[in-house]
Amino acid sequence: MLRVALGQMRVIPGRPDLNTGTMLKMIAGARRRKAQMIIFPEMAVPGYLLGDTWEQQAFLRDCEEYGRRIIEASAGVCVLFGNVAVDWNKIGEDGRVRKYNAFFTAQDGRLCGADNFPYPFRIKTLQPSYREFDDSRYFFSLRKLAAEVGKSIAELLQPVKLNIDGKTLSIGCLLCEDGWSDDYGIKPVAAIRRNGPVDLFVNISTSPFAIGKNNERNRVFSRQAGAAGVPVVYVNSTGVQNNGKTVYVFDGCSAVYDGSGEIVECLPSFSSEMKLIELDLTGKTKKSPSVPVPDDRDLDSVYRALCYGAEGFLASTGIERVVIGISGGIDSSVSACLYTKILGSENVLLVNMPSKYNSPTTRRLAEKLARNLQSLYTVMPIQESVDHTVKQIEQTPVVKLKNGNRLHLPVTSFVAENIQARDRSARILAGLAAAFGGAFTCNANKSEITVGYGTLYGDIAGFFAVLGDLWKHQVYALAEYLNRQVYGWEVIPREIIDLVPSAELSSEQAVDEGKGDPVIYPYHDYLFRAFMEFWNRAAPEDILTWYAEGVLEEKIGCRPGLVNQIFSGPREFIADLERWWKLYTGMGVAKRIQAPPVLVVSRRAYGFDHREAQNTAHFTAKYLKLKQEIGK
Amino acid sequence: MLRVALGQMRVIPGRPDLNTGTMLKMIAGARRRKAQMIIFPEMAVPGYLLGDTWEQQAFLRDCEEYGRRIIEASAGVCVLFGNVAVDWNKIGEDGRVRKYNAFFTAQDGRLCGADNFPYPFRIKTLQPSYREFDDSRYFFSLRKLAAEVGKSIAELLQPVKLNIDGKTLSIGCLLCEDGWSDDYGIKPVAAIRRNGPVDLFVNISTSPFAIGKNNERNRVFSRQAGAAGVPVVYVNSTGVQNNGKTVYVFDGCSAVYDGSGEIVECLPSFSSEMKLIELDLTGKTKKSPSVPVPDDRDLDSVYRALCYGAEGFLASTGIERVVIGISGGIDSSVSACLYTKILGSENVLLVNMPSKYNSPTTRRLAEKLARNLQSLYTVMPIQESVDHTVKQIEQTPVVKLKNGNRLHLPVTSFVAENIQARDRSARILAGLAAAFGGAFTCNANKSEITVGYGTLYGDIAGFFAVLGDLWKHQVYALAEYLNRQVYGWEVIPREIIDLVPSAELSSEQAVDEGKGDPVIYPYHDYLFRAFMEFWNRAAPEDILTWYAEGVLEEKIGCRPGLVNQIFSGPREFIADLERWWKLYTGMGVAKRIQAPPVLVVSRRAYGFDHREAQNTAHFTAKYLKLKQEIGK
Repeated sequence: MLRVALGQMRVIPGRPDLNTGTMLKMIAGARRRKAQMIIFPEMAVPGYLLGDTWEQQAFLRDCEEYGRRIIEASAGVCVLFGNVAVDWNKIGEDGRVRKYNAFFTAQDGRLCGADNFPYPFRIKTLQPSYREFDDSRYFFSLRKLAAEVGKSIAELLQPVKLNIDGKTLSIGCLLCEDGWSDDYGIKPVAAIRRNGPVDLFVNISTSPFAIGKNNERNRVFSRQAGAAGVPVVYVNSTGVQNNGKTVYVFDGCSAVYDGSGEIVECLPSFSSEMKLIELDLTGKTKKSPSVPVPDDRDLDSVYRALCYGAEGFLASTGIERVVIGISGGIDSSVSACLYTKILGSENVLLVNMPSKYNSPTTRRLAEKLARNLQSLYTVMPIQESVDHTVKQIEQTPVVKLKNGNRLHLPVTSFVAENIQARDRSARILAGLAAAFGGAFTCNANKSEITVGYGTLYGDIAGFFAVLGDLWKHQVYALAEYLNRQVYGWEVIPREIIDLVPSAELSSEQAVDEGKGDPVIYPYHDYLFRAFMEFWNRAAPEDILTWYAEGVLEEKIGCRPGLVNQIFSGPREFIADLERWWKLYTGMGVAKRIQAPPVLVVSRRAYGFDHREAQNTAHFTAKYLKLKQEIGK
Repeated sequence: MLRVALGQMRVIPGRPDLNTGTMLKMIAGARRRKAQMIIFPEMAVPGYLLGDTWEQQAFLRDCEEYGRRIIEASAGVCVLFGNVAVDWNKIGEDGRVRKYNAFFTAQDGRLCGADNFPYPFRIKTLQPSYREFDDSRYFFSLRKLAAEVGKSIAELLQPVKLNIDGKTLSIGCLLCEDGWSDDYGIKPVAAIRRNGPVDLFVNISTSPFAIGKNNERNRVFSRQAGAAGVPVVYVNSTGVQNNGKTVYVFDGCSAVYDGSGEIVECLPSFSSEMKLIELDLTGKTKKSPSVPVPDDRDLDSVYRALCYGAEGFLASTGIERVVIGISGGIDSSVSACLYTKILGSENVLLVNMPSKYNSPTTRRLAEKLARNLQSLYTVMPIQESVDHTVKQIEQTPVVKLKNGNRLHLPVTSFVAENIQARDRSARILAGLAAAFGGAFTCNANKSEITVGYGTLYGDIAGFFAVLGDLWKHQVYALAEYLNRQVYGWEVIPREIIDLVPSAELSSEQAVDEGKGDPVIYPYHDYLFRAFMEFWNRAAPEDILTWYAEGVLEEKIGCRPGLVNQIFSGPREFIADLERWWKLYTGMGVAKRIQAPPVLVVSRRAYGFDHREAQNTAHFTAKYLKLKQEIGK
């Protein structure tokens, strides 16, 4: 039996000083509890999502310095941890000093593993280049190293040999993606096994939460352990890291898979803790009892990810109080409930900002919500200010200095709609938040963000979009979950959930007349998801093909029969499709460029995970042909 | 002699339909003029900076379809062009269909080069993973292909053989970065030569403008051609492409280097045109007359890049008219002059928005500038609205619903400063621009953007930051250039250039009393540049070390003696350094996340070229030690 401590720590990005502090404490604890080994996550010392901070040599030196302190602390307990490794004598392909995403194995103050590798550490073999990952931008890969030293990659994938209490232990060192090799030509686990024997695989990760991801990971890693007949220990970090536009939560959920593929240990999600386990390295045939593993596809996971992420983002930005504009609609209500849970009602100021278009219904509902939450509350009408702005723009003459002519610019009702939205956010919310000593929230959801249904510097503004990665139907589901599971009563009034969604910016959007948003969420949520979340993104060509073949609802996942209920024929269908595609690839992009950071819960979120250019809308030749055929 | 047409075309990103139209026209022209070969840039069909559009299979099929039309048009003239190549039977490491950044050589309706390569096209060998480049995210590299087919990279780097008028011509096909191999372990030019003989190297590129880049390229490519004794034809695209946050101009400047390294042809910058040349493939010893090459480090280049980029960005977003808030300060004046040149004075509406803090001086200067530019002009004071906002926030009671207590939130002078800035941008400029049927500009410069000296939804707002990649001292130089070279008279009044820079948001910033910004541009411009532009970014540890060693001014490039003039001692120096470092890595990031796109002219611009995370400020252990030593 091997006594192993799993160091599922909260990693603070860019703070080797703080992370090293956490690690030294955990190492001391492990030693006290007679652990023979402690394992920390990938990039435990520096953090992982740091943008181009890797280009600061001072930061690299600092990570090395703190790394040395960890190595020095390995007396009597073997310490496995992730850090950046620097080869100051070599360069990367950007001409800067060479960096590796490295796996260190320290014992009694020394690094192990130099006997069969060019360095006394292991480096990441598979560097992901999709979604938010930018490993190739910063780190020199094993592939390139192999070419340089004139060896094959497989040759370099050697286990690290440790001597623990007189016994030699052969460890297969994996860094995160190395365990996810299905789409790669190189299979690190198999290669290391061929250079084995291996007693234990250790996968250190910095793997963000996404709905359903742990279920998949358990499937992949169980299979891996079972196929190898060797246990796999997976240690993931917790905490919150971001890439500017996109904020990720790391859920931990570290686990141990035994040699038969059973999950024999499973750490709680979102918890920074050390757990000591007894690992059986011999009994490959003995079936270990498997532990129950939580399902991460349910709303409970989403709710916890949102709270953990918002809390962490607030903490790292130093924001302790928030102002939330509540309209009586669903998004702001859900946002208000979340922040009240996180910060306490005394740190949440809710404000209703009615114009003449806001119905008595929604004004009443907003107040009811605030009373239910027992928060701070105020009502600041915007009509006077909006009237002043419209009047100022319309009545102030513009002079054509070329000829002295004067002209007046009329304010249309569409222009006035956006003036209202900006008056609320940029005038009241921003001012009020500053006076309150906090920040104001952005309550936009993913459906709105997809097509830019919202006003720049208006409802798209705010310090953070906590619901920005949830489709409208998920926001509704979350509202129900909050009432049922979190608060245990109808804190969000049923009427808010049942109300037609509306921006209430003109008489065309009067909720009491059942009028609302132009987005038909039960269909468009799924259409938009096909545009942006599908691994192979659907473009109008695909959508129209599916429509023509009668399989659209099945393909995008919306309710059967819905499409023909909504559209009277192909022409209407096509007009709708093109309208939203143009917005998604056009004005939507322009607005996202200036939108707040989004908290990620899906497998594809806006921002750094969904890179995009502001280009003109394109329709493929095949689409145009198809349109001509069926649009007749 | 080989008759070669250089197809220096304007590439429209994401529009294979339009690009193919341009190419077919140029091919027809080349055929008429009896060219034997025409060469188009890298990714001429799809465009290059497309974000994750590469994940749409419909788009890939469309690029293939348009590519086929180009290939079909190659009867009688050999067509070399860049396009995405798709292997529908293989996957990339992201599990999606495999894509290559490819170099196609078509002749008489067929593709050449399948005789010595796995595909009938060549693929990019060196995929840049720095600055704005994301090649590894989308394209399968030669390195990976070599591993897959079990050959060495060098073996795969074969020239393409063409038969032109009965003679065999051996072409070394290079894609952009392939010609910039200094920092790579693989040297494509040398490898292809070893598999030669080679008659001609062709480098097709999509290489953005940056100050001084062409000078460097001429140096590198001249050396390359000279060393090989083989001519190099370089064809670069023109046009404007973006990565959302960051807008690049492509300057063309295609060139021919003869076998002795002389530049014998040079196409104009920013011009979409085909040029027919006679290329001497034999006379390696005969010295060709070299042509004059423009220097791209001067202000003329910068000015032209700014105009070309803004014009292209306006065209692609469909914006034909702009509103510019002019304060009487330098940034908005330069912005107004640029847009007036681009759009004509009838499409530029200048607006001065004074509060009680704006001096008569700057109000007079703003009007003078507008008169000089003969634009549309108006004055819209903000004091009434700002007073209303302050009053509304201060006087509307906030109710603590827990206990019914009422409280009032005071508006401090700092809070009021930002209320003014937002009132100008989010209330007036945004509303006015909508009424005018256009957009409003962001006039922020790089110095302000670095430290977030500006207000979110205030002066940081706007559709585009045309000066966002120029340090304050470059804005001044550009002002002088506009007066001297572009307008030929003092269109920007001298007083504006001589005035102390100030936001005029409080009595602490009264220009007539010589008070202004907290940024001391002659020093901080260079400090900030060291933080963000240095290839190895300077962190406080480096700055303090240089300060201690007395070499700071030399290292960062500011005026000698300046530092001791500004700071009375190490303590003041350190306080200043930490203040700006915290802003650069903290609030500055938060503001940049929501800032407008920036037009790039430097070798490091904000946005996608300068990836960053919103983390807490970090000071290295060595910095803290040094600070303790010298801060005593």
